[in-house]
Amino acid sequence: MSKLEAVGIITEYNPFHNGHLHQLNVIKEKAPTACIVVVMSGNFLQRGEPACLDKWTRAKEALVNGVDLIIELPPQACIQPADRFAFNGVNGLASLGVDYLVFGAEHAEYDFMNYASQVQGLKGEFKKYNQSYAASIQAAITQALGHELAEPNDLLALAYAKANLKLGSPLKLQPIQRIQAGYHELALKAGQQIASASAIRSNYQQGRLAELRTYVPHETYADLSDNSLVFWDDFWPFLRYKLLTTTPKELANIYGMAEGIEYRLVQKANELAHGSSFDDWLHAVKTKRFTYTRLARLAVAMLLNLQTEDITSYNEAPYFRLLGFTKRGQEYLNAKKKQFTYPLVTKVTQKDAKGPLAVDYRVGKLYQSLTGKEQDLKKAPLRIF
Amino acid sequence: MSKLEAVGIITEYNPFHNGHLHQLNVIKEKAPTACIVVVMSGNFLQRGEPACLDKWTRAKEALVNGVDLIIELPPQACIQPADRFAFNGVNGLASLGVDYLVFGAEHAEYDFMNYASQVQGLKGEFKKYNQSYAASIQAAITQALGHELAEPNDLLALAYAKANLKLGSPLKLQPIQRIQAGYHELALKAGQQIASASAIRSNYQQGRLAELRTYVPHETYADLSDNSLVFWDDFWPFLRYKLLTTTPKELANIYGMAEGIEYRLVQKANELAHGSSFDDWLHAVKTKRFTYTRLARLAVAMLLNLQTEDITSYNEAPYFRLLGFTKRGQEYLNAKKKQFTYPLVTKVTQKDAKGPLAVDYRVGKLYQSLTGKEQDLKKAPLRIF
Repeated sequence: MSKLEAVGIITEYNPFHNGHLHQLNVIKEKAPTACIVVVMSGNFLQRGEPACLDKWTRAKEALVNGVDLIIELPPQACIQPADRFAFNGVNGLASLGVDYLVFGAEHAEYDFMNYASQVQGLKGEFKKYNQSYAASIQAAITQALGHELAEPNDLLALAYAKANLKLGSPLKLQPIQRIQAGYHELALKAGQQIASASAIRSNYQQGRLAELRTYVPHETYADLSDNSLVFWDDFWPFLRYKLLTTTPKELANIYGMAEGIEYRLVQKANELAHGSSFDDWLHAVKTKRFTYTRLARLAVAMLLNLQTEDITSYNEAPYFRLLGFTKRGQEYLNAKKKQFTYPLVTKVTQKDAKGPLAVDYRVGKLYQSLTGKEQDLKKAPLRIF
Repeated sequence: MSKLEAVGIITEYNPFHNGHLHQLNVIKEKAPTACIVVVMSGNFLQRGEPACLDKWTRAKEALVNGVDLIIELPPQACIQPADRFAFNGVNGLASLGVDYLVFGAEHAEYDFMNYASQVQGLKGEFKKYNQSYAASIQAAITQALGHELAEPNDLLALAYAKANLKLGSPLKLQPIQRIQAGYHELALKAGQQIASASAIRSNYQQGRLAELRTYVPHETYADLSDNSLVFWDDFWPFLRYKLLTTTPKELANIYGMAEGIEYRLVQKANELAHGSSFDDWLHAVKTKRFTYTRLARLAVAMLLNLQTEDITSYNEAPYFRLLGFTKRGQEYLNAKKKQFTYPLVTKVTQKDAKGPLAVDYRVGKLYQSLTGKEQDLKKAPLRIF
């Protein structure tokens, strides 16, 4: 690998933990001179929830722990379904001229690019009313591959491979065997140093901050100690307010709204008891036709007022946002920036309240209305040298 | 006066205090057998603010202290400018077949019906950019009457008279000389028993509950003690959220939006420092062209998502809402209800989430999202016998 070769990762770092650090160390061992480029979601995540720490804090954690260049996937890109999110991430890395895509998989031995060519263009049959779209797609994949592909990181890997194939295979895929900690495992296991991000957030919420010291790098532990982590229930009063005062008709243009679900979303909010939580509403709203994740993404789209045309505009003219870099990252930027396919935005100003960056501006303002920490104006990319 | 004669009052009771009680006692002295009918604003008031206590609590205070029949002016009627609010109130009393309208005035000796005929149809010249509409109207009135008419209750009296004239003078007007306490007087004066509603709320906010005992009836004092009073800052996070996530274009149909002020409303919200209050925003937004009250009413219209068509629909098909009655009030209702001009709604149900009562439903839900006290569903009119 030459010095200017770059290894890419698509991630959310919610928050940055030892599992992420392990991944960086594996990369550094194999390619010590490569520039590690990360595409990260911003203040709202693909699974339909706010990030527990803002994007600048998470970017800093990443840079301090070995990432060289970190860019943000804008809100319009993060809010899309998993396959589209994966595409947007791969597109970001490809736009920056990155060579390799590294990701964890439950089965690192699978040939995901080969799988991708087998399932490319596959649409799930969508006949049964009681089968969600995701389940339907999964059944079709199993049929095409001859075996199940059901574990979350394997599925994400397939999505990366499909995106890469669609873009003409600009990236070489490098799966890494995932170790310990299942994606949804919420317990901290004694004697281990790796826990899932969900487990870390869940234990934080239960007041067990001190126990998390083993599972996160020093920088993250300091952030967990210094900040009040953000969760859906912090934004829920705003979404509830919106649901109580907006007509279903006014919600019809929100991205992801389908099958008249807007009537149900409003009705269930109206029927909730006083003091109900976001989860209470989500459970009340749930139908067999919509997965929890899809509903949560719909909730974020409503919260952020993301309309279908916002997402269409983004898909037609993608852009990415520079969050920070190390010295090596800066060298990479200087050498390659003239060849970047899509714009790499370096700042959002007061003027961007209108125009193509209006969504970034708006989402930043909303997130900081909770935390009080400026997200955009006068905010230069981080330089960790 | 026969037993079925009725004396009407248009009021907000925010909250019910000794000044209001005094007014009722004056009426009872002069017309001991009359039915006292009150038209009251609901959970949001004409001056563009939430009521400090919900409408049911304020209605109960009124009924316990001598009112016989109390009806609510719906949110679409309350949010209109002072002249229109007065018209809606007079219209409500006329619809119920009330005979007299009693109101306080700084100059009870004025012949307001005569004044009304002199200024009916008068529109203020609106040439000077630095003169607000209200000031412009006032100048025109002064010219027509040959003397100033500037005090707030005198102006309200004139508005009642104009409304009455417009409706064919169904009501006889009975001004009562206002005593003590100026409308905007915020200090409590020792040795007196009457203070303005503003003074009562302001002292409550400053933690001087005990000192208010002298200025309000027992029932109100109990309510002030048992409830956390509601103020604009309780709703401000919701309005701020809306301003941060809605485009000016989406706000253009809000009732009262004019001259492109929506751009300024959004911009100033975006520019506010973290932790700013509703008043901070209001002061930032203020221009010579818009009075504070007009801006506050705009703020309520945005908060409640009241669109121009909501208000137009109400004006075309007015209705009122029954909040409660005494035995005498019930007798009045039974004797007169077949002759009422407009619908007197007695309940709002789950079905009313859509349809003509959708605004009542929505506003009730929003107010109770703060207080936890049901405002509509399964809520029967109060009976204080």
